Amino acid sequence: MNTEFDVIKKYFTFPALRDDVELAVGDDCAIVSVPENKKLLLTTDTLISGVHFPQNTPAKDIAYKAIMVNLSDLAAMGATPAWLSLAISLPEINEVWLTEFSTQFSALLSQYNISLVGGDTTKGHLSITIQAMGFCEQGNILRRDKAQPGDKVYVSGSIGDAAIGLHAIVNELADNALLPCIQRLNRPQARINFAAQLSTCSQCAIDISDGLVADLGHVLHASGCGAQIRLDDIPLSLAARYYFDTYCHQKTDWPILLTRGDDYELCFTVNEKNQSAVEALAKRYDLVISCIGEVTDSTELSFLSADGEVFDFEQNGFQHF
Amino acid sequence: MNTEFDVIKKYFTFPALRDDVELAVGDDCAIVSVPENKKLLLTTDTLISGVHFPQNTPAKDIAYKAIMVNLSDLAAMGATPAWLSLAISLPEINEVWLTEFSTQFSALLSQYNISLVGGDTTKGHLSITIQAMGFCEQGNILRRDKAQPGDKVYVSGSIGDAAIGLHAIVNELADNALLPCIQRLNRPQARINFAAQLSTCSQCAIDISDGLVADLGHVLHASGCGAQIRLDDIPLSLAARYYFDTYCHQKTDWPILLTRGDDYELCFTVNEKNQSAVEALAKRYDLVISCIGEVTDSTELSFLSADGEVFDFEQNGFQHF
Repeated sequence: MNTEFDVIKKYFTFPALRDDVELAVGDDCAIVSVPENKKLLLTTDTLISGVHFPQNTPAKDIAYKAIMVNLSDLAAMGATPAWLSLAISLPEINEVWLTEFSTQFSALLSQYNISLVGGDTTKGHLSITIQAMGFCEQGNILRRDKAQPGDKVYVSGSIGDAAIGLHAIVNELADNALLPCIQRLNRPQARINFAAQLSTCSQCAIDISDGLVADLGHVLHASGCGAQIRLDDIPLSLAARYYFDTYCHQKTDWPILLTRGDDYELCFTVNEKNQSAVEALAKRYDLVISCIGEVTDSTELSFLSADGEVFDFEQNGFQHF
Repeated sequence: MNTEFDVIKKYFTFPALRDDVELAVGDDCAIVSVPENKKLLLTTDTLISGVHFPQNTPAKDIAYKAIMVNLSDLAAMGATPAWLSLAISLPEINEVWLTEFSTQFSALLSQYNISLVGGDTTKGHLSITIQAMGFCEQGNILRRDKAQPGDKVYVSGSIGDAAIGLHAIVNELADNALLPCIQRLNRPQARINFAAQLSTCSQCAIDISDGLVADLGHVLHASGCGAQIRLDDIPLSLAARYYFDTYCHQKTDWPILLTRGDDYELCFTVNEKNQSAVEALAKRYDLVISCIGEVTDSTELSFLSADGEVFDFEQNGFQHF
């Protein structure tokens, strides 16, 4: 176990899963086929230890997150995943670490019927770059530039848990009630199955990786619209509510919830006439979705509290938007 | 110029070049189409500063090499490049560096008619991961497992220059006569155009990235054959001969030439009946190719000196093969 070839052979060679992969590893390139009439969708994300995940994150969680953040980008456009490549830089060849990483990696590939089609293993600071590829029919692609004034704004799942989880790790809050937030940080759930059907009710989606304020901002900027969001309708988990009750004098810290990112939930817009259809679809996939506001024909994104006051994220320390 | 978005917008947004790219940047994924009846070939290579190139390598040479090592993998299978994605990790936002990198990057994309279809920009030790994608007709793919006993073994260009170039940099040999070797290290030439036609005369190729001994070894291992190579027929550049004359008492250092890698020349095998055709093809592309030996039905790869002695790379300090 002392060369790149040994590592690839032992830890990154998985059974072929798909008929559309003619050759996955063992030559200079992989050889694959895209089905006729389907578009190929591509996305790349890098996770660097100490930047995108805490340095003490378990190997299996790193594998999980590295795949999921990429699948979440495919989900955001309604694509079904097919293949991925893995470029991994490792500070050392640690067989315990590699076994744990590889086992989780392989399990997720099987679960989503994804074939690994190559990659590269190098020596360096721990860093993982995945390119995920998937298919979508031309008419079913969700895009961030398709929001229309009057559309309802929805999000899946709950928002802000990962940010609280990271806060708990960084500040060493030893509190089991916050473990669900740490789980959400380390094990984001790409909404692949729901998203693959979402084009029946929506044309516009994004995944929330940079925080709802920034990502909804991207949608509105691309679509040339604004939105009014009701803070009270933004879905919080029980663990998040517990965090604010216990550590913040029962005051909800909106900037941590909406500007730190790592949610990997979907934010999408739905024409009023499709609201019951999208809610039925979500139910079919056991996914909680919440209508949190409306697209407007202004270019302003405003967040309103229950008493109708506008919440100003910039005044609350957020620079990004 | 203080966020990832600014960097991508200013330095990594290039004009759309290809009709098969519906969306390159600006959404969660890129959207592309693969022509009917073509296979998609994928390859990924990471270059890390201080590992894959000296830390003082100019930005434009890093851009050049990062693209070329990936195109060389496409060439090794006879594919024509179409798209690539770029995941780059930067220690800081240095606008002079980024301008130089981006200008060279863009020039090569135009030269080869390649569209950039996404990527990721992160903060960290300088590291570049490129995934290159290209097309090939099913019957025209060159594979490393197709060598046949009796085939002639060819290489393109000259071998070992990059290793001498690296040696010159590391040992600070201030000798202008070695600049061509440094140029070969920093500016490898993927043999894309020749390789795209090579399937008319050959079925089996690899690119020489790990050194001829290792890479020809991969071909022979995959094909279940051996080979006899004549050291005297291995093509050396004038600069390489000068290096051995001046710095090695006129003794050719075969291990440095054949085991250090970074050549990015092609090694391919040709049935005797196609030899004149392949030589005509090379001439058409102004490419020097050299027949250096023959595939055998043993499983041994041996290198013979002019007097018929077998040269033993393992005894000369090479572990890899």
